[in-house]
Amino acid sequence: MDFPTWMAAVQARTEAALERYLPPATAAPARLHAAMRYATLGGGKRVRPLLCHAAGALFDTPPADFDAPACAVELIHAYSLVHDDLPCMDDDVLRRGKPTCHVEYDEATALLVGDALQTLAFQVLAEHGGTAAMIALLAQASGSRGMAGGQAIDLAAVGKTLSVEELEFMHIHKTGALIRAAVLLGAHVGGADDKALIDLGHFAGRVGLLFQVVDDILDAEAPTATLGKTAGKDAAQNKPTYVSLLGLADAKRKAADLRGEAKAALAYFGERALRLQQLTDYIVDRRF
Amino acid sequence: MDFPTWMAAVQARTEAALERYLPPATAAPARLHAAMRYATLGGGKRVRPLLCHAAGALFDTPPADFDAPACAVELIHAYSLVHDDLPCMDDDVLRRGKPTCHVEYDEATALLVGDALQTLAFQVLAEHGGTAAMIALLAQASGSRGMAGGQAIDLAAVGKTLSVEELEFMHIHKTGALIRAAVLLGAHVGGADDKALIDLGHFAGRVGLLFQVVDDILDAEAPTATLGKTAGKDAAQNKPTYVSLLGLADAKRKAADLRGEAKAALAYFGERALRLQQLTDYIVDRRF
Repeated sequence: MDFPTWMAAVQARTEAALERYLPPATAAPARLHAAMRYATLGGGKRVRPLLCHAAGALFDTPPADFDAPACAVELIHAYSLVHDDLPCMDDDVLRRGKPTCHVEYDEATALLVGDALQTLAFQVLAEHGGTAAMIALLAQASGSRGMAGGQAIDLAAVGKTLSVEELEFMHIHKTGALIRAAVLLGAHVGGADDKALIDLGHFAGRVGLLFQVVDDILDAEAPTATLGKTAGKDAAQNKPTYVSLLGLADAKRKAADLRGEAKAALAYFGERALRLQQLTDYIVDRRF
Repeated sequence: MDFPTWMAAVQARTEAALERYLPPATAAPARLHAAMRYATLGGGKRVRPLLCHAAGALFDTPPADFDAPACAVELIHAYSLVHDDLPCMDDDVLRRGKPTCHVEYDEATALLVGDALQTLAFQVLAEHGGTAAMIALLAQASGSRGMAGGQAIDLAAVGKTLSVEELEFMHIHKTGALIRAAVLLGAHVGGADDKALIDLGHFAGRVGLLFQVVDDILDAEAPTATLGKTAGKDAAQNKPTYVSLLGLADAKRKAADLRGEAKAALAYFGERALRLQQLTDYIVDRRF
């Protein structure tokens, strides 16, 4: 199976699984459930589920076993987007080419949508084979010492001058922690040994930063229509980015370095790491 | 041990456990962690932890085994209060006698505090002996078909005329689901058999409604200083309550009926249900 076919297959099975896990829009409270589905289905590249399945492809485990952890991570990601877009946070009106959840519904509903999507993430994992250790891993990655903490650091950084090290500390929490969880949950389900978990941890750390550097480059370069969200927003809000700190050329060089380091971390797995390697390339090359 | 002594001991051990589980205010991001502690520690009657420990007292299990599930439920409760108080929800400025989290800090921080407290609830349970089944139970009680769903039904009900049945449907979700989870998590940790779980489910259903009826009576009767939150708010916002639908006298009669039904559901346990009986009385008699 070539990479685009594999990727489309994972995206399709992730969409189908999310569709199953989300409550139907007909179930009460119907408006909340419709809004949860609006915020989750039919959009996004599903990078975190792809990473979970790609890590899973290292092992002889059927793809269906990775649907629950992949969706759990994606539900955490979806909740974070809904809350990040709220007026008291980034106050954004466009997401994945559609009005943001609080614009399409209302602010109170969007707050509850984010809350309930987070809960659903843990429910899906707990109800479909997730162990307490896997649930703890997802919680650590999502909470105040992971993604939510990164968001707090981000808030505090608006209008400030950060060093590259401080920017990196923020991103390791804000996006890196959940990307790491996606990879490690796939590895856990596949039955990875300690050596594999350590190497995949290194890989995921590099890929997490890579993802953010590329995001910053896209935000600086791409028109809004291509991006599916408001472009140039970080610069307009005076948020520090890799591009604002390093300049575009050095940000691209940093992306190239991180791609190399990520792939080097996969050496132990040899040929079995094909999907993880291809996905690393996809993350870098998706737009430039 | 008399009931006040037992209650004080459970409240003290819950406070100590929450203190341990919450990240220190010195850990980065310090402002977020300080706000999480502000919103959780040093306040509240800890009714849900009391219910969890009281259910646990049916079994020969040391109290320490119930600290994690009790705190997990309390963390879900604390997150829901922080989010409910936000301007886009109830827009409240006073909670447990202190400024609400978004007043003391800011709206964005309060949003993240609620998000991170929810995550911490699942983390605490997963890291301290909680099984996948227990985590699923807590998630079901907290999510769109439980507490968050009840909140959505509540939002939709503002300014509408509800029947008592519709009001009850809302409360079964909004407060009842989490109270039920508190009782059943205690029972699960204690190793309850199927008969015990069914009876405790009935008990918890009655206590959940009882709790809300009493809350409505307190909101209608008590001055703000005694209540620790803004009194008379439900009536002012034209929210339906048991008092507005039934009148004060019938609401009090309903509380008396529910107390009787709750205690009747404990018959199977005999003397062992002492703490649950005492707690039921406490819930009714705490203020009138």
